[in-house]
Amino acid sequence: MPKFDFDAINLGHGSGGILSQRLLNSGVFDVLKNDKLDERHDGAVFELPGKLAFSTDSYVVSPIIFPGGNIGDLAVNGTVNDLAMCGAKAMYLSLSFILEEGLPMTTFWQVLNSIKMACNAAGVQVVTGDTKVVERGKGDQIFINTSGIGQVHAKAALGWSSIQPGDVVLINAPIAAHGIAIMSLRSGLEFETSITSDTCALHHTVLQLLDEYGDALHFLRDATRGGLASVLNEIAKDGSHGIELLQKNIPVDEQVSGACEMLGLDPLYVANEGVFVLLAKADVADSILRSMQSNGWPQAAIVGKVVAEHAGQVTMQSSIGGRRVVNMLPGEQLPRIC
Amino acid sequence: MPKFDFDAINLGHGSGGILSQRLLNSGVFDVLKNDKLDERHDGAVFELPGKLAFSTDSYVVSPIIFPGGNIGDLAVNGTVNDLAMCGAKAMYLSLSFILEEGLPMTTFWQVLNSIKMACNAAGVQVVTGDTKVVERGKGDQIFINTSGIGQVHAKAALGWSSIQPGDVVLINAPIAAHGIAIMSLRSGLEFETSITSDTCALHHTVLQLLDEYGDALHFLRDATRGGLASVLNEIAKDGSHGIELLQKNIPVDEQVSGACEMLGLDPLYVANEGVFVLLAKADVADSILRSMQSNGWPQAAIVGKVVAEHAGQVTMQSSIGGRRVVNMLPGEQLPRIC
Repeated sequence: MPKFDFDAINLGHGSGGILSQRLLNSGVFDVLKNDKLDERHDGAVFELPGKLAFSTDSYVVSPIIFPGGNIGDLAVNGTVNDLAMCGAKAMYLSLSFILEEGLPMTTFWQVLNSIKMACNAAGVQVVTGDTKVVERGKGDQIFINTSGIGQVHAKAALGWSSIQPGDVVLINAPIAAHGIAIMSLRSGLEFETSITSDTCALHHTVLQLLDEYGDALHFLRDATRGGLASVLNEIAKDGSHGIELLQKNIPVDEQVSGACEMLGLDPLYVANEGVFVLLAKADVADSILRSMQSNGWPQAAIVGKVVAEHAGQVTMQSSIGGRRVVNMLPGEQLPRIC
Repeated sequence: MPKFDFDAINLGHGSGGILSQRLLNSGVFDVLKNDKLDERHDGAVFELPGKLAFSTDSYVVSPIIFPGGNIGDLAVNGTVNDLAMCGAKAMYLSLSFILEEGLPMTTFWQVLNSIKMACNAAGVQVVTGDTKVVERGKGDQIFINTSGIGQVHAKAALGWSSIQPGDVVLINAPIAAHGIAIMSLRSGLEFETSITSDTCALHHTVLQLLDEYGDALHFLRDATRGGLASVLNEIAKDGSHGIELLQKNIPVDEQVSGACEMLGLDPLYVANEGVFVLLAKADVADSILRSMQSNGWPQAAIVGKVVAEHAGQVTMQSSIGGRRVVNMLPGEQLPRIC
């Protein structure tokens, strides 16, 4: 960390005056340095031919630092992944902080550096930004918004209208790790685990699958807030199809599964940050699965299929036999998970 | 307002589950309706040829409703204006809410409708969004992030390198109205005025000037946080030029000026939301001024010039004679002004 002449964020750092300049010039611009950000205008200017995707998310995760990541890399990966779900490679991000007065500079610095590392890993640049400061008790340390622009893969034909009965439902990784990693830290609920958040950028995988399988990929969505159950319900409802899941095929890490049991949580509803759902043409599903398994996702799995029956509804064949309806998350299980 | 089955925002509205869906489906999607938002994907997909501008701002203004506007139209106009300062016409906005638990639905509805009206006035669409909810006491009613993408005008040649000694400094409207409108409401400081915020979209004016004067426009910046003094200092410092102001030419509404005096504030440092600084080639400055005056900005004025001397410094010839240095805002005058 460079030597700042202040230990904590104060209201002046959001003033637009000397203190704002000092915060940015004492390291922020150095960390995120690139030719577009260096212009220091009200916005970044560039050309991006072809079809573009545009997405936004605000991150309010609490606590801001958790096993496997912090709000900084979460904010980069989250928006990179939202673009990936549109079949796009993230190119440029905006970065906007709402800081609470009193935030230690060491914390800010840690988050900023995680942002930089996540950008490097994802191959994306922060090209424009904003910093606001609110009084003590009017925020909660750091909130971050990232918005992103990406270029859509030429072979992408993803969308509601591409979904067909018979499509296979795949996921890339075991579910529920992120939510449980956060939960393990919440006050009053601390328990000892080595479970870490699954936050990571998913676009390398998605773009490779688009290269290989093109329009055989019908729909993508990351299973963040509300977990796998909520995102599948959304797909079923908006696409007017039914979805049938096979519980035994859904990968859940043993420790995660144990923690869920202890906390009385159903892993189907626990948030993920590195899990996506892919609906794909049935005849290439096995090939897609092998491709994912041999490219960094050993626990990728076929977890169900799209059916013409019970439109709008998700059902699950349980491991012990019997079929039940899997509803959308009714209330709020874990607030501020992302 | 439609009939919501809840009176206030609760944590479930940020869950990604049923309550999130209910909030969005009970009116939000209807108010902001357009074909890209209707897709309801993780991002919006579109093509935008040519040079693009990309900008972001988070809005934390307090109070959220003030004379002349609220945080909703402020958030739309602010980002539209940041794009305009890059010489761009705003095309698509993202919209991200951080709501505090307990926010009355009537307030949310009022803000949402202001967003829609400001979008209509500016000719811009909200195409993607996000809603998070934080616990009571961890936020402050509503924070909004808008990010925007715009198409840069073909004739725009704005930038640091375009600034030349001899350039004339113009502004479009009287300064300090926004800051004083907010200040008039702050607890303990209430006073009676009819001063309203100057929040508005500036891109129509900017695009028309670019049509008419092209590369004779050298630099644009809106004088928001830190006021006219801070933005001019930023221009002087980053462009390595001096700037000389003429105090008598700087328009300040009489009531605003009186309020500033009463509060001990220098209007040069008070935030604006509808004032921009234009640096332009000297030989067309009078023509630009007349064009602005006859197109909705009767109080537009030439307020100074760029000089080769005292690089990095802004000086001002005062109305009563004498020249003084105008520094950047040193601390924080009015927190959470935007």
